[in-house]
Amino acid sequence: MDSNLDAIFSSLKTAQAVLAVQNRAERDKALSAAADAINRDRAAILQANGRDVEQARKGGMKESLVDRLLLNDKRIDGIIEGIQIVIKQENPVGRVQSGWTLPNGLKIEKVTVPLGVAAIIYESRPNVTADCAALAYKAGCSILLRGSSSALESNKALVKAIKTGLAEGGGIADAVALAQSGSRDEVDVILNARGYIDAVLPRGGKELIRRVVENARVPVIETGEGNCHIYVEPSADIDNAVEIILNAKLQKPGACNAVETLLVHKDAVAVLMPKLAVAFAGKCELRCDSTTKAAIGAPPSTLVLKDATEEDWETEFLDYILAVKVVASCEEAIAHINRYGTKHSEVILTNDLKTAKEFQLRVDASCVYVNASTRFTDGGEFGFGAELGISTQKFHTRGPMGLEALTTIKYLINGCGQIRS
Amino acid sequence: MDSNLDAIFSSLKTAQAVLAVQNRAERDKALSAAADAINRDRAAILQANGRDVEQARKGGMKESLVDRLLLNDKRIDGIIEGIQIVIKQENPVGRVQSGWTLPNGLKIEKVTVPLGVAAIIYESRPNVTADCAALAYKAGCSILLRGSSSALESNKALVKAIKTGLAEGGGIADAVALAQSGSRDEVDVILNARGYIDAVLPRGGKELIRRVVENARVPVIETGEGNCHIYVEPSADIDNAVEIILNAKLQKPGACNAVETLLVHKDAVAVLMPKLAVAFAGKCELRCDSTTKAAIGAPPSTLVLKDATEEDWETEFLDYILAVKVVASCEEAIAHINRYGTKHSEVILTNDLKTAKEFQLRVDASCVYVNASTRFTDGGEFGFGAELGISTQKFHTRGPMGLEALTTIKYLINGCGQIRS
Repeated sequence: MDSNLDAIFSSLKTAQAVLAVQNRAERDKALSAAADAINRDRAAILQANGRDVEQARKGGMKESLVDRLLLNDKRIDGIIEGIQIVIKQENPVGRVQSGWTLPNGLKIEKVTVPLGVAAIIYESRPNVTADCAALAYKAGCSILLRGSSSALESNKALVKAIKTGLAEGGGIADAVALAQSGSRDEVDVILNARGYIDAVLPRGGKELIRRVVENARVPVIETGEGNCHIYVEPSADIDNAVEIILNAKLQKPGACNAVETLLVHKDAVAVLMPKLAVAFAGKCELRCDSTTKAAIGAPPSTLVLKDATEEDWETEFLDYILAVKVVASCEEAIAHINRYGTKHSEVILTNDLKTAKEFQLRVDASCVYVNASTRFTDGGEFGFGAELGISTQKFHTRGPMGLEALTTIKYLINGCGQIRS
Repeated sequence: MDSNLDAIFSSLKTAQAVLAVQNRAERDKALSAAADAINRDRAAILQANGRDVEQARKGGMKESLVDRLLLNDKRIDGIIEGIQIVIKQENPVGRVQSGWTLPNGLKIEKVTVPLGVAAIIYESRPNVTADCAALAYKAGCSILLRGSSSALESNKALVKAIKTGLAEGGGIADAVALAQSGSRDEVDVILNARGYIDAVLPRGGKELIRRVVENARVPVIETGEGNCHIYVEPSADIDNAVEIILNAKLQKPGACNAVETLLVHKDAVAVLMPKLAVAFAGKCELRCDSTTKAAIGAPPSTLVLKDATEEDWETEFLDYILAVKVVASCEEAIAHINRYGTKHSEVILTNDLKTAKEFQLRVDASCVYVNASTRFTDGGEFGFGAELGISTQKFHTRGPMGLEALTTIKYLINGCGQIRS
């Protein structure tokens, strides 16, 4: 094992044992001091980020990606505000979820406890560093942060501020650690650290998730890939439908909660498609099947209109592209979604109560919406203050992951000498 | 992919989608008919089991293992009773765990839903077949059963009865399937069935768990290994302590919830060890450190007494062997347990309230007991009717896994046209 990481693993585990017995007030105080330290070290953090950004531009990084890496005063304010919202959240540990007494008098309580030591492997955004450190600390967990090498200077400066702040607030600085080597080998060491890492969360693109799933021997919480759908019924308010589809596709096309395929009921095609063509002209390519294409008629001159292929139904474009398909029924829409979807965020636009309930019951996804944009699937929007990522795995943590995702349960069993007969 | 398994995977997934929309009454009715069918097919099941047992004895299987494989009328009664207890359990799906409204009016509900398609890979006991099928069906899940080849005839007969019964009760017979080839390759196909299997549960020995963890690309819920401890304080009732240690070690030494190492506070050694030596003489080997050995004095002639080694602290004996070690404090006991334990079941015997709370707070295990035997860590004892296994993983399913382990959550989000700003 990498000896540097070995020392970090031990230190995280020791720190977590101490953190686990601190109470809520102690954890909140330390987090508050960490937020203060980020504010105080603002200039150093921005300078470090400036070096990352300069390096990234030199290396030819696309400006849209540079923007994800970039910090400025407003974004630092956002990071601090995120920590403050996390502080205000209820304490996720120590809750008695249920309890009962056995016939022999043994009393069983199921209580929430910290998950332990978490590791997160993520890509360039430096705000993830602070968000995840704050969530983990609040939940009584240690966290190993393995960010992208492109954000290394920013992450170092942020983690330095966080650790200094935690110590100043009487907290456990060693509960937060940054993996710094940037080598691929480092990721493999993390994925194999059984006995040290209780769960690893990959947060990033398809390739990263795949690599983690294939190589991890520690438990994994998968996040991310979002091949999301909106299904439009004839009973939907069509103008509002256009507005929702625009929002879900265009507000942030690179996000995992952006819509990728639009499913249109055959009786809604004629009224929806011409309006959609106008709204998307000059903004986003449409890849239509023959029915939805024909319904557009003469397309606006600035509309990029192509024929959809089978591959389009499977693709998370993360780009200014929307696939469009007609369906004969809600039944067919559900079948399409359950076949091609990634269990992330799925929407029905309808005014029919029975169909809405049917859709929510039968679609297999973490978030199933009636009459709203897919874009709300987000820890911040859900009110969690921050998020570890969006779980697309089907364990008890699913969808936007906030504090609860960093807890597990423990049975406390109190007896007076019982033996099993 | 194995074409036979391929067809089974598809069929399980299709069946689950149908089962997911059935209500509790429908599922219970089908399960009740399955229990009736097992009762009716009792003779055929016992005959099939007889063939497995004969084959096993021919192959030289140890009688203790033959006993795990063996069915008789009483055990069939137990299987039927287990299904009836599962039927009586509350419906685990459709529970609203929490709900809130966003500032924009979007209403979010977090509800429990079936996990989907589960696979269980297990060893010889045929009752596991019926237990897991019943739990899965009640939770709205399909299940792929991959038992040991030594129990194949028994499992075929049981699964045939269960499927016939489910169909007779108006249920979905295809929600239960048995993997029959018995090849190792079959396990690998299951472990790689991403998109078909939502979780795989290995239930068995250390080697099986290791193999699954190393090879699975579908999510795993680890079960099983139990290096369990009992820690005795001076304030404990010493006669009751001896009784609890005897029960935890000897009632079923091969069970994962049997105690493996006894930790004795230095001030309890003198009074406990001579009584323990008498109680264990002729029944169980003791592997003691020098302090606890010396405290025994002249051992009873029938006591097998050996010196403990470092390896003993790490070993799940699953045998008539108990390791014994002195500790200077509760602190040292907790550190020993958190170092060598497998997060299964840990016990403190004490009359000191503060120490009891400290132990329960700081020991990292699924079940932490005060003044009772480790042997209660069991789905049946917990009142679940049956169990899928004991999770030693630290996700939200931990300890004995009943119906809740087969659920996940879904966010249902209801709006009136909201878009994200």
